[in-house]
Formats: sequence, structure tokens, C-alpha cells
Amino acid sequence: MQTAYAVLGGDRRQLRLAELLRQDGAQVYIDGFDSVAGLEQSSLEQAVTADVVILPLPVSMDGTTLYRPLSSSKLALEDLWPLLDSRRQLVCGGTIKKALRKQAEKAGVDLIDYFDREEVQVGNAVPTAEGAIQAAMEATERTIHGAKALVIGHGRIGRVLARDLAGLGALVTVSARRFSDLAWIDAEGCQALHTERLAGKLGEFDLIFNTAPARILGRALLEELKAGCVVIDLASEPGGVDFGVAEALEVRAIWARALPGKVAPLTAANVIRDAIYHIMEERG
Amino acid sequence: MQTAYAVLGGDRRQLRLAELLRQDGAQVYIDGFDSVAGLEQSSLEQAVTADVVILPLPVSMDGTTLYRPLSSSKLALEDLWPLLDSRRQLVCGGTIKKALRKQAEKAGVDLIDYFDREEVQVGNAVPTAEGAIQAAMEATERTIHGAKALVIGHGRIGRVLARDLAGLGALVTVSARRFSDLAWIDAEGCQALHTERLAGKLGEFDLIFNTAPARILGRALLEELKAGCVVIDLASEPGGVDFGVAEALEVRAIWARALPGKVAPLTAANVIRDAIYHIMEERG
Amino acid sequence: MQTAYAVLGGDRRQLRLAELLRQDGAQVYIDGFDSVAGLEQSSLEQAVTADVVILPLPVSMDGTTLYRPLSSSKLALEDLWPLLDSRRQLVCGGTIKKALRKQAEKAGVDLIDYFDREEVQVGNAVPTAEGAIQAAMEATERTIHGAKALVIGHGRIGRVLARDLAGLGALVTVSARRFSDLAWIDAEGCQALHTERLAGKLGEFDLIFNTAPARILGRALLEELKAGCVVIDLASEPGGVDFGVAEALEVRAIWARALPGKVAPLTAANVIRDAIYHIMEERG
Amino acid sequence: MQTAYAVLGGDRRQLRLAELLRQDGAQVYIDGFDSVAGLEQSSLEQAVTADVVILPLPVSMDGTTLYRPLSSSKLALEDLWPLLDSRRQLVCGGTIKKALRKQAEKAGVDLIDYFDREEVQVGNAVPTAEGAIQAAMEATERTIHGAKALVIGHGRIGRVLARDLAGLGALVTVSARRFSDLAWIDAEGCQALHTERLAGKLGEFDLIFNTAPARILGRALLEELKAGCVVIDLASEPGGVDFGVAEALEVRAIWARALPGKVAPLTAANVIRDAIYHIMEERG
Repeated sequence: MQTAYAVLGGDRRQLRLAELLRQDGAQVYIDGFDSVAGLEQSSLEQAVTADVVILPLPVSMDGTTLYRPLSSSKLALEDLWPLLDSRRQLVCGGTIKKALRKQAEKAGVDLIDYFDREEVQVGNAVPTAEGAIQAAMEATERTIHGAKALVIGHGRIGRVLARDLAGLGALVTVSARRFSDLAWIDAEGCQALHTERLAGKLGEFDLIFNTAPARILGRALLEELKAGCVVIDLASEPGGVDFGVAEALEVRAIWARALPGKVAPLTAANVIRDAIYHIMEERG
Repeated sequence: MQTAYAVLGGDRRQLRLAELLRQDGAQVYIDGFDSVAGLEQSSLEQAVTADVVILPLPVSMDGTTLYRPLSSSKLALEDLWPLLDSRRQLVCGGTIKKALRKQAEKAGVDLIDYFDREEVQVGNAVPTAEGAIQAAMEATERTIHGAKALVIGHGRIGRVLARDLAGLGALVTVSARRFSDLAWIDAEGCQALHTERLAGKLGEFDLIFNTAPARILGRALLEELKAGCVVIDLASEPGGVDFGVAEALEVRAIWARALPGKVAPLTAANVIRDAIYHIMEERG
Repeated sequence: MQTAYAVLGGDRRQLRLAELLRQDGAQVYIDGFDSVAGLEQSSLEQAVTADVVILPLPVSMDGTTLYRPLSSSKLALEDLWPLLDSRRQLVCGGTIKKALRKQAEKAGVDLIDYFDREEVQVGNAVPTAEGAIQAAMEATERTIHGAKALVIGHGRIGRVLARDLAGLGALVTVSARRFSDLAWIDAEGCQALHTERLAGKLGEFDLIFNTAPARILGRALLEELKAGCVVIDLASEPGGVDFGVAEALEVRAIWARALPGKVAPLTAANVIRDAIYHIMEERG
Repeated sequence: MQTAYAVLGGDRRQLRLAELLRQDGAQVYIDGFDSVAGLEQSSLEQAVTADVVILPLPVSMDGTTLYRPLSSSKLALEDLWPLLDSRRQLVCGGTIKKALRKQAEKAGVDLIDYFDREEVQVGNAVPTAEGAIQAAMEATERTIHGAKALVIGHGRIGRVLARDLAGLGALVTVSARRFSDLAWIDAEGCQALHTERLAGKLGEFDLIFNTAPARILGRALLEELKAGCVVIDLASEPGGVDFGVAEALEVRAIWARALPGKVAPLTAANVIRDAIYHIMEERG
């Protein structure tokens, strides 16, 4: 039998997700997108009858209402939970914080996080890396081709980003701390550099991307940068760059965050759809 | 002895060119950039004493005055020629049309075209390809990675563009007409398609780049495109896409022209500098 | 109607060619492979009735008999021509020298060369490059990955070889003489070096491939090579390396010739088949 | 002060290792290579005074004598231990089994394994992948370029191998079981396939590489292979292919083992040297 899905709010990604599910032949109810012109929505009552209820990414910004940036009305979480039944439904959402999970559990709703999965993190590294490259293209007067580029950190994003930069013809150095990461960087065809040995070497780079979740680029390193060098910071709060110092030094530094949803909502929706399918497959 | 250069007008590329020549240790006079704040200029009288006089790209837009978009005053070509002496100076400029060349010759000035060289065409293919990718990134809701991309034409730009797209993880098909080009496309790791056999196959692509100097994408082919497909046209006048039909069909089509100067003036300046050095080397 | 082909002698490539034509659904007669066990052959009389007669590559080694290394008997060319009729048949062969062509013409046979086509040269560059890499792998104690490799010459083979070496993680320098080739080398992501400026720079390379048809690697350059450096020469007669000097200097130098037929006869056969189809298509 | 090393036996890799250490400016004693002509050796007594004693890879084949394939004499482990002192020396060796470690400990020698490190495993994946490609080149009549290749397993070797194959222009599918690996395979530009869903899909491949440590290719899957398909098995004992069945089916299957030492002893020595340096760095 055909599976029915409900997509309850969220940003453009969730709209694309609804479309992708429909393209796969599913019945999809949507609610919480009333600001989008020309879109037929279901009633919330009908939507909550679905087999799979998909809450947004993130589920909530304020902790009390559902994240519905494309709706003119608010929906309180405490009004939503009684409509759901996780015994007969799969109820899932993105980045579910502890308090939210507890709140839902109290109301008898078991929340599954589709964002907290390794394949989603990997899948999102691709649009994040491309978004970083787009930001670099827009910020520089030169091509990526031939640029000396440094990627700080060899996690998922660093790995994909280094590959993309090399694919465009940049000369790529990647910094990491573990010997095994340094061996991988070499195996992947890039120059390896220990993150603790960045000092004294930053002056040669045209482009620097930080992917490490640490304040690595402080005054001492920023002072090394050559004129025209652009820094793209992909770290989450509080960021890996001392932006105040960067401004004072007239270093062009860009804090690029939440890229998948911004630069490639369709790709981001694809990643979420796959994760939901995987959750369903694992539950049998 | 140190060579002296004069950079007489032009856009940002020529400013970057002046900087690059200075970085190489040369004496560089500039004139025709008075709209740029904080820039010290030479007098035209002093500038024309240089060993190498570099006219802009293009030398002239209107056929009578020098192309000086960053100047508040005009400089008539007929006032310029008497100041130059191609017996003791190398006088060069970009895209010199026949009439212009004749006009200069009459005034005793032998113009050398730095843009009409194969290595410049190749060198500019790199920023053109990156500019096309940047345009595609900005226009689509998806990543280049995983996109089915078609590049029409296997000239310099098509060749570099296909490489870059594949480097970012796109699945690349390139169309051409000659068997040898089709063999090259295969050798370069892309799918080859005969340009005369595009019909019936365009519906599968997410991204289409036209590099061929011909109106290839007319109504019949545009009607094949799937929803969300983005077309980037890199052809010069009159363009390779019927933009009127594209608009009527709600196909997103972008005519991206003169990309090197727009997206990567520094790289474009580098290409011009190298060409000038090559001209000097060839003249001995 | 089904096209009938005759494959008259040649090496393993031609056997593979016969198989490929059969896989495409054609009627294929073979003759001149009697040394290959378990292979059913046609009579020569039957074979020459075919629509397309495919002579070997090369057609003849000695100028008087057909090249049939897999046959125990000889077939004189002057006995072959009277059996053929180029008014109703396409008669083609590989590397047809002037004298041979004249001889055939006298006998009323118009020979078409399937090897003398640009797409065949490009197609063969792929197995040649892979054969060169295989030779380097076999001759060295190190990986291609991480090797500093020099490719002398940026023709078809140099271009494909540089791409393959970079694809395996080598650090690739390509030398050429023309500025446009140097620009292409840069656009293709390799280091460019002028062939006239090799002197003084050869000591850094682990692997050197010569693709230029000239005696470039004489004593002076060979003396620069570091211990363990391996030289693979892909030039045709008389070769690009002074092998006597190389031996005296204990430089490991390998003259790798006729690689497509040796390392990848199936791929080589594919290239010939495509060329024959192209010839047929062009003749309409 | 200069560090002194002793390289006590082993195969060609260890000889290359001694050379590399010398190139880095160290004092290096070697012992256990008396079968190699023209090589000056130290006395064992002198060698054991070194700061770092490097035992072979593996330390022992038989559990009682040191692995010295390039020596005409045997050295019993129980005679070696009393000569060493791990309080003042770093004593290291490759693949140290439990019993061996205990035996050494009893004699007061603390053995450090330089092979049991993540960066060594990664570093060896590079020559293993190249060795696998060399084996495939030698075994097939076609190029890697354009081949449909399947890599079973996305561990270190699978990952590097897929990259190399794609770098040569193969069309690469990689199979794995975890969703995160499947996401990585896609991010790395290859086609992902679930290892449990291989059945029914093997007939399309020209080349199959097994890197998974499991008997995956039994009769059912081997029967699917098309004529000419070559299988390269990189799994350790008992191997991933039923070689008896493969032979019966006339499938060309090659069990390629211990490739780094065979195809690239110099690269393998480099990896070991780096690991020893890392051990020294970690010990301070």
C-alpha cells in the first residue's frame, strides 16, 4: 500500500522534500506553507493521519512553536503533540534537542531525528563544500584554478571541500592534527600540514577555508595573510575566525553558515528524504 | 635595464595588470583611471615615454575614443596616435578591429593585439568556465555534484568547462560534431554526443551550457527541457539560445558574457601580462 | 540488410575486431588466423565477397605479403588485389604507405586508411598512456602516487598521459614549446615547462616520459637524472633517448612501442571498429 | 645529537628504509642482509647499540627466528632479546603477535608495533591500490579507461582504489553496507551499491576488485560475470573469491596479496619510516 507522508512546516527544503516524495509516488500532505502563493495545502487534521509525519529542520527555533518560516500563523508544539501517535506513525524531525524530546515524550510522542545520522552529515558536506566554493568565487577577483588554497580541518566538510577545490584546479593544502588524517590527506592527493604548525605558513595562501570547530584564526595568524587573501569560515558558533581582528586588518573574512538550505535546498531535501527512507528501512 | 610600461585606460583588469607588472619589478605609468579613489596616476605625457604602451581591452568601444570606463574624461584616438612611436615602443591593445588598425597605421603606429593570441584564448577559458559554474551555482537549487550536465561544443571553453564540472562531481556529457572531438571527449572521461543528435536527449539534463557560436537551442530543443533545468549560454552575439522562447517556456536561461573581466579580473590580468611578455620575447 | 565484413589477417587486435563486429550483429568472415587454435575460419574466396574488407594494421611489413603473424602461410599482395573490387567493396587497412597504395591502385583497388584518422590517433593515445603507466609501475620501486613526473611533449599522448598520471596522484610537469600549449598545460592543472629549458631541472623527477618525436634526452640531460629515476620513451624511431648513454650512466630507460596492440588489443580493436564505421558513415 | 638506528633484517623494504633514514642524516647500522651483494653491514654487536632498533615486517614468520629472507644465517629471537634494552632503546617491529610480545616482555624487551598504526594502514592503501591496478592492467586486454569497474568494500583500500580507477577514467561503482559509506561513495563521485544487492548486477562489470574480508564471490555471483571480466581479490586469508569455482567457470581471478612490499618497496619503506618518526615524536 502507498505510504502517506505529512510535511509540517519548515523552509524551502521541506517544500522540495514534499515534491521529491510525491515524485516517488507517495501521498503527501503539507501544512505550514500558507505564505507560498499557488500551493495547495492539506488541513492539519488530515495531515496528521499520515503514516510518516515529518517535522521541520530544526523542529523549533524558540522551543515552543514549530519552525514555520513560510506560514503566517504559529503552531504551538503543545497543540501538536496530542494530534500525533508514535505507535502507528513514524514521527521525525531535524536536530531535536533534549528538552524538546522530553516534552514530546511526556505527550507520548517518540521523536526520531533524521538529521542526527552519519549519512546526513556526509550528504550535507557536499552542498556545504559547494556553497563555500561559491562564496569564494564571489569574494575573490581570481579563479579557484591555480589558487593556493588551505583547508583547515579534515572532517567531512574538509574532505569534500579539498576534493572540490582540487577538482577545479586549486593547489590544495589541508591541515589536521592526527597522523592518520595527515596520511589520508596525502593519499587524497593534497599537501598535508599539521594544524599546530600553521604559523609562518599562512602568507602563501590565496584562499583559506576553516572547517574546524575552534577559534583557530586569531590575530597572530590573521596578521600573516597576504593582501587579497580571502577567508571563508564554515565553523558553527562561535566561529573559527576572530572577525573583529579580521576587519581591523582589512582581511576579507566571510562566515558562511547553514549553506545546504541556502545554496542547494533541493539537494538538502534529497539528503533528508534518503535519511527518512533509511529510518523506515531500519524499522522494518 | 628596467622596462617601463604605460597602462592607458581600461577596466579593473588593466588596473590589476599595472599592479602585476609592478610586482614583477617594472616601472609602470597609469593614465585613464581618475575615477578610482586613492590611486596615483602619471601624466599622459610621462606615460607615453614608456617602452611598452598597453592600450585597453577593447582598445575602443566607439571607434573614436579610448575605452576608459574608469575615467571622467575622454581621450580621442586621433589625439593619442601622435604621442606614440612604434619604432621605439611596443604599442599593444586588445581586440583591434581592422578599421582601428588602419587608422593607427596611417598615424604611423603599429598596433600589436595581445588578445588575438591562442594562449590568451586558452588562458581566458579558465575564468570563463569558472564564471559559468558560478552562474549555475547561483541559479540552481541543487549542487553541481551529481547534476547531469551537458556542455554543447568542445572548443577551448567547452573543454575546460567539462573538466571543471567533472571535477565537482557532475555527470558530464559534451556534444561536438567532429569524430576527433568525440574521441577527445571520451578520452577526457566524459560522455560524447553528436551535436546533431541532441534532439530527444535534452530532457535528462539538469544543467546545459552552450559554448557553440550558433543558435542551437531553439524552440524544439527548449521544449524538451525538464522543469528546473538551467541553461547557461556562453556564446557571443547573437547567442546560442532563443531567449524569447525560453522565457515563454519558463526555462531559466542566462546569457553569461565577458566573464573573465567580471568574475576574475586578476586572473584575466595575469593572462594579458603573460601575453605581453610573450610578444616581447618573440620580438627579441 | 546486414553488412558483411572480412577481416583478413593481422594480430590479436584484428581478432578482437572481428568479435566486436559480430557482437554488433554483423556477418564476419575471417582469414589468416590459422595458428590460433579452435577458431573457425572462412575460405579466402568466401571472405572476399564481403561488403567491407579489412586489411591488417599494418597492411604489410615487408611490402609484398599481407601482415599475418597468426597464420602459417603467406599471402602475396599481388595475389590479393585481383580478388578485391573497390567499386562494390570498401577496402581498408592500417598505415598504408605510398608504394603500397600505388601498387593497389594499379590493380584497381582503392585503399582507405582507417589508421590515418585523427580520431584513431586520439583513441590510441588512451591505451598508449596506460601502457606507459603500466611500464612505469613495473620498472619502479615506488608508486605513481606522489611521484614527481615529467611528460615531455603535449601532443595527444602527452595530454592523455599527463591526465592519467595526475589521476593517480603524481605531481605532473609537462614540457612543450608553444605558448598555447603551455597555457593548456596550466589549464589542465599541470606545471608547464618550456622544452628548451629542461636543462638544470631534470634532477628533481622520479619519472620521465618522452612523447616528443626528437632525440631530446642525450648525455647532458641524462647526466642530470637522480638515482632511481626511470625514463619511458614513447617516441617512434629513432627514439627520444640516447639509450647507449643511458646504459652507460645506469639510467633505467625503457623504449615502449606499439603499446595499444600489446597492452590493450581489445581497446585498440574498438578504436579501429569505430573508425571503420565513421568511414562508412562518411561515404554514406 | 644524531640518532642511531639499527635495521635488523627483513626484505627489500627494510633495505630501502635504511637508505631513507641515512638520507635524513641518521647513523644507520644494518644486519641480516648478507645475501645482498656489495652491501656493507655492521656487526650485530655494534647494531644493538643504536637508539632505535627496527625489527622486520613481520618480526618473525616462524615464531622463533627473526624474519631475514636476505640473510644466509638464522637469528633466534631468544638470542636477540638479551642484546636489547628497551629502557634506553626504542625497539620496534611490524605485526607483533601476542605470543611474540609476551616472549619479548619476559626477556625485558618492550616491543612497539610500527605497523599497527592507522597512518600505516592508510599509507599502505596507496601502493596496494596501485598494485591492484597494475595487476588489472596486466590481466586484461583492455584499458582501465572506460572500463566498468566494481570495488567491493569501502574501507581504506576500497576508498583509495576507487579514486585511482576513476582517475584513470573507469566508471566506478563501489559497494558497501552502511548508509554512511554509501553516502561517502556518492560524495566521492562513484556509483554506490549495497553489498547485499550485488546479485543480478555483476554481469555489467569488466573489472571487479574485492577488498572486503569475506567470501563474497561464491558460485552464484561468479556465474553472473561476463566473458572477459577479471577479478582481483585483495582480501587476506581465506580470500574473498571461491577460486576453485572461478577456475571451473574459466573466470580470470587473481589473488593479489602483500602488494606494497612487492610493487613499491620504496613507498612502503617511506610509510614505515614516517611511522617510526611518529612513534618517536609521541614518546617525546
